Amino acid sequence: MHVLFDVAAIGNAIVDVIAPADDAFLIQEDMAKGAMTLIDEGRATELYGRMAAGIEASGGSAANTVAGVASLGGRSAYIGKVAADALGDIFAHDIRATGAHFTTAPLHHGPATARCLINVTPDGQRTMSTYLGACVTLTPADVDPAVIESAAIVYLEGYLFDPEEARRAFAKAAGLARAAGRKIALSLSDAFVVERHRHALLGFIDTQVDVLLANETEIMALFETDDFSAAAKAVASRVEIAALTRGAGGSCVVTPQSVHDIPVHAPLRVTDTTGAGDQYAAGFLFGLASGQSLDACGRLGSLAAAEVIDHYGPRPERGLAELARGQGLIAA
Amino acid sequence: MHVLFDVAAIGNAIVDVIAPADDAFLIQEDMAKGAMTLIDEGRATELYGRMAAGIEASGGSAANTVAGVASLGGRSAYIGKVAADALGDIFAHDIRATGAHFTTAPLHHGPATARCLINVTPDGQRTMSTYLGACVTLTPADVDPAVIESAAIVYLEGYLFDPEEARRAFAKAAGLARAAGRKIALSLSDAFVVERHRHALLGFIDTQVDVLLANETEIMALFETDDFSAAAKAVASRVEIAALTRGAGGSCVVTPQSVHDIPVHAPLRVTDTTGAGDQYAAGFLFGLASGQSLDACGRLGSLAAAEVIDHYGPRPERGLAELARGQGLIAA
Repeated sequence: MHVLFDVAAIGNAIVDVIAPADDAFLIQEDMAKGAMTLIDEGRATELYGRMAAGIEASGGSAANTVAGVASLGGRSAYIGKVAADALGDIFAHDIRATGAHFTTAPLHHGPATARCLINVTPDGQRTMSTYLGACVTLTPADVDPAVIESAAIVYLEGYLFDPEEARRAFAKAAGLARAAGRKIALSLSDAFVVERHRHALLGFIDTQVDVLLANETEIMALFETDDFSAAAKAVASRVEIAALTRGAGGSCVVTPQSVHDIPVHAPLRVTDTTGAGDQYAAGFLFGLASGQSLDACGRLGSLAAAEVIDHYGPRPERGLAELARGQGLIAA
Repeated sequence: MHVLFDVAAIGNAIVDVIAPADDAFLIQEDMAKGAMTLIDEGRATELYGRMAAGIEASGGSAANTVAGVASLGGRSAYIGKVAADALGDIFAHDIRATGAHFTTAPLHHGPATARCLINVTPDGQRTMSTYLGACVTLTPADVDPAVIESAAIVYLEGYLFDPEEARRAFAKAAGLARAAGRKIALSLSDAFVVERHRHALLGFIDTQVDVLLANETEIMALFETDDFSAAAKAVASRVEIAALTRGAGGSCVVTPQSVHDIPVHAPLRVTDTTGAGDQYAAGFLFGLASGQSLDACGRLGSLAAAEVIDHYGPRPERGLAELARGQGLIAA
């Protein structure tokens, strides 16, 4: 099958509700700063009632990445489950409006479209509380083989290890991609996801993953160490490429043969880091799919991350392709 | 009755859908750049389908102003109609989360919550297409006399001249405010609104309005002139205070006795001018309610406008009170 997409991704299809908060609010609500916590509908209603005024924006980790790839001029596809409701319509509109291919049927007569309540502290850190709603009904039947088989890179988010049916969809996609000779990329998503599913994730990484994306907290959680270098060394022997983000410390791309330290691309200001990792993944995977060097891939990732850190919302507001051309990272 | 609120406002309760667009898109969709056009539900669906990916944020001109007053540390109240649906819940949450008093009952079994589709061109200009939905069902019964009578300033948006029942609610509020000896402020809202309702607006201004807010296009439309100075002179004899915004040219506050030119407060960058006029009104009215000089009121307006121009979305993301203290416009 011909390559039609640079990146096809499967993920939890979520609408974000993003509002400012102070650290005292996180403590009062007993929230783990910087992490993603799963909540039920009752807690979602209760927490939303106490949050500040905010904005709504389509989110979902892998969906944000797909939007970023499209913004860079790449061809992308997305698979994820929303409900047939107002937020689901917004999600579907937004992902299609980026130019991404998205045909997963919305859920009727079930839970509502997933919401992620994001409290952003003055340091730009985001703390996420997710009601998965319709996401948990994503099944293997939603994974369209034609999409997976025609993507240069199939990208899976670690968050999919939480909903059980979605994990099966995940396995199906990996199997199809492997059989078609496609690259499989995985994001670890969150340190708590790693804690909940470490064994399954390690097994999956060893057998299926070519490219691993993680931040330093997640990669250290995976290898149960507080030494970043040790974690980077451990992952280097298990995958072809690992791209490890370190916040303001830039990123580090490791392979079995090499280590590449990538400088951070400083944002205009730090407003909201929601989506920073997702956009790093977008730049990195777009670079890989277009045959760029690992250094260039990392710099594309940093550039894309800087764009979203600068404003509320997890997806680029300015065309990433133009920004990348301005930096000489894409040919003019 | 005691003064409980600095500002109580009545307006169209709307959720904004804000997305980037180029000028060619406005031409293709036959939209009047910078204006607000009323559309029906069918057109709203059609236009949304062709718009870029965006964000959703609570809007509505007077509601944005109320949120701005609250952000400045003022006490505010809002009256406006949403439906009992997902967007209505978001609107109600957001206005209450600012600290504003909001108790208008949502509409059941009728049209959906109003949406304003906002296309933002690279110059930061916003072009608005509004489906009024539930707004048009705001009736005089929704105007709570206790709220109106306890507000130092009652603020009415000119957009309310469009839905017929809302216009009656508007008249009721003005009557109550007048009887209670409160100040009545009016925003002209939009040049097309002025064209549609010039005669009624002039009558209302002459008999009821103490403070008029308008931009230069609107005030020139009201007096059917293309000479700003002539329009400013014409309005000065009809109201106690008129605050006229001139975009990058700052603003001009006129009274029967005086003219005050207020410099613009330069935004960090021009991203999206949605809500700039509404935030100018917030700063200006908050200043008036707290007994500041007209110059200080104008500068508070400029400061608040600059904050929202800098990002997508019509309401402040940073606390305006702190920004104002930083500029010496509110006592530390």
